[in-house]
Amino acid sequence: MSLIVVGTMAFDAIETPFGKTDQIIGGSAIYAAYAASNFIRPINQVSIIGYDFPKEEIDQLITRGVAMDGVETRKDKKSFFWSGRYHADMNSRDTLITDLNVLADFNPQMPENYQGSEFLMLGNLQPAVQMSVIRQLKKRPKLIVMDTMNFWMETAMTDLEKVLSQIDVLLVNDAEARQLSGQYSLVKAARSILLMGPKFLIVKKGEHGALLFHGDKVFFAPALPLEDVFDPTGAGDTFAGGFIGHLAKTRDVSFENMKTAIIVGSAMASFCVEKFGPIRLKEIKKEDIDKRLRLFRELVNFDIELG
Amino acid sequence: MSLIVVGTMAFDAIETPFGKTDQIIGGSAIYAAYAASNFIRPINQVSIIGYDFPKEEIDQLITRGVAMDGVETRKDKKSFFWSGRYHADMNSRDTLITDLNVLADFNPQMPENYQGSEFLMLGNLQPAVQMSVIRQLKKRPKLIVMDTMNFWMETAMTDLEKVLSQIDVLLVNDAEARQLSGQYSLVKAARSILLMGPKFLIVKKGEHGALLFHGDKVFFAPALPLEDVFDPTGAGDTFAGGFIGHLAKTRDVSFENMKTAIIVGSAMASFCVEKFGPIRLKEIKKEDIDKRLRLFRELVNFDIELG
Repeated sequence: MSLIVVGTMAFDAIETPFGKTDQIIGGSAIYAAYAASNFIRPINQVSIIGYDFPKEEIDQLITRGVAMDGVETRKDKKSFFWSGRYHADMNSRDTLITDLNVLADFNPQMPENYQGSEFLMLGNLQPAVQMSVIRQLKKRPKLIVMDTMNFWMETAMTDLEKVLSQIDVLLVNDAEARQLSGQYSLVKAARSILLMGPKFLIVKKGEHGALLFHGDKVFFAPALPLEDVFDPTGAGDTFAGGFIGHLAKTRDVSFENMKTAIIVGSAMASFCVEKFGPIRLKEIKKEDIDKRLRLFRELVNFDIELG
Repeated sequence: MSLIVVGTMAFDAIETPFGKTDQIIGGSAIYAAYAASNFIRPINQVSIIGYDFPKEEIDQLITRGVAMDGVETRKDKKSFFWSGRYHADMNSRDTLITDLNVLADFNPQMPENYQGSEFLMLGNLQPAVQMSVIRQLKKRPKLIVMDTMNFWMETAMTDLEKVLSQIDVLLVNDAEARQLSGQYSLVKAARSILLMGPKFLIVKKGEHGALLFHGDKVFFAPALPLEDVFDPTGAGDTFAGGFIGHLAKTRDVSFENMKTAIIVGSAMASFCVEKFGPIRLKEIKKEDIDKRLRLFRELVNFDIELG
């Protein structure tokens, strides 16, 4: 009943129409771990950090049940750093700085005590790195979920195809689904992507929600309509963490339970965007999550009598 | 238990990536009447047509329970004509031709036998025309639903504000809600628009579904993910017709029943886009509608246990 999360632990500097941060904590594995830790522990973290990564952040993660055995610390390099500026509509952003630093050397080594984990979340990383993680696991996990991005479709498509053939659930946004499949219609894109390996496809549409495709079935999860999206950074990784966290907790990987998992992921993402970075994710408690899940149920629930 | 539909009965010429039509039948009151006639009859149609409007189209409408007493025929002018070309993504279009013809003289006269109708659908028209219809009704309908567009916000805002103060439900798309309110956040836009008069606001988001706002409550209806959107013309009017048709049939204007009505509207719109113009709307039967409503239920239904 354990979960491996592979991804970045990093620094971000973020500008939105609402404000600007100095260097704050970020990275896909940070968001995913904070989200998932509400549902399952331990979280077997796999990442790489530099000498500058704050000890108090590590301590906070350990308190949340996040194991650090798979997190390499480099004494000679800085942590990965990303800086970006969001446009007024919050749907698009410009990357200002990408300093790979330690990430250029990321060659994850799976600790022995992580072996046997049933759930694997592969955050968006170079496909060869994702594949190396899969290969190091002596027993294939019950479920492998993977995130990726357009950059790898353009620069490492052969490697990406290999990873796709090995996984169960692919998470991409609508533009990436279209790019990967060459199809504009998301229904056609899904059909084409499901032939590449994954048995489930989740298409994230930001403020427009998310779609889950499996065979001929489709499920739609809305995003919660919010007064303000304060900072969208990490929302996708938080969604992924909530999604796989619920699946790992329930150990049920049926289509029916994935529907629920997507709603859980959407609820977690709706918290993430309320404050800068992972701040809001550190604050929320079970009661907050349950309350928000009720909001989601009210948001889409309807009665209809059919003849 | 009767419904008045006010709007255009017209000709359209449409180009999409899938093909091109000659002049075919169209107009907001055509789409709304075809959709609504699945749920309630008679439909008391209010419109204006020219000498060129085909008799067989009128006959088909009459067969569907659409009353023509409020449809003026001008012997000296042609019917309203619109021609447009959709872009590859189907989300935007260019208007190629707008020949107002009879529409320039539209000054609806309410037939005596329409008086007492409980439901009123005001299609997108000059706000002064919409207001004239409201004023001619001796007894205020149980529910007034209104569509409008950005053009009237720019050219007739004072008149538009007067109509808004008289209606129950406003239907606009997301861009129009933002323009009308001056707010980017749809939650803030809704709060602001609900202060202008309407007690309910429906924000149509095309392929991303629709939101219903009422007080502090919100409901989200998805659009059905389709392989291809063949022709989006009339989808919004079809949505409106299905929405008010369900309400008129059930005579229940509660928030709970409006949720169902929005799903019905979305289902009707999902048929509309499958073929050019109202062709598909003329074909479908009750079984088709029930089957599609079941798809909508499956699309959003999820189970979750909350503590």
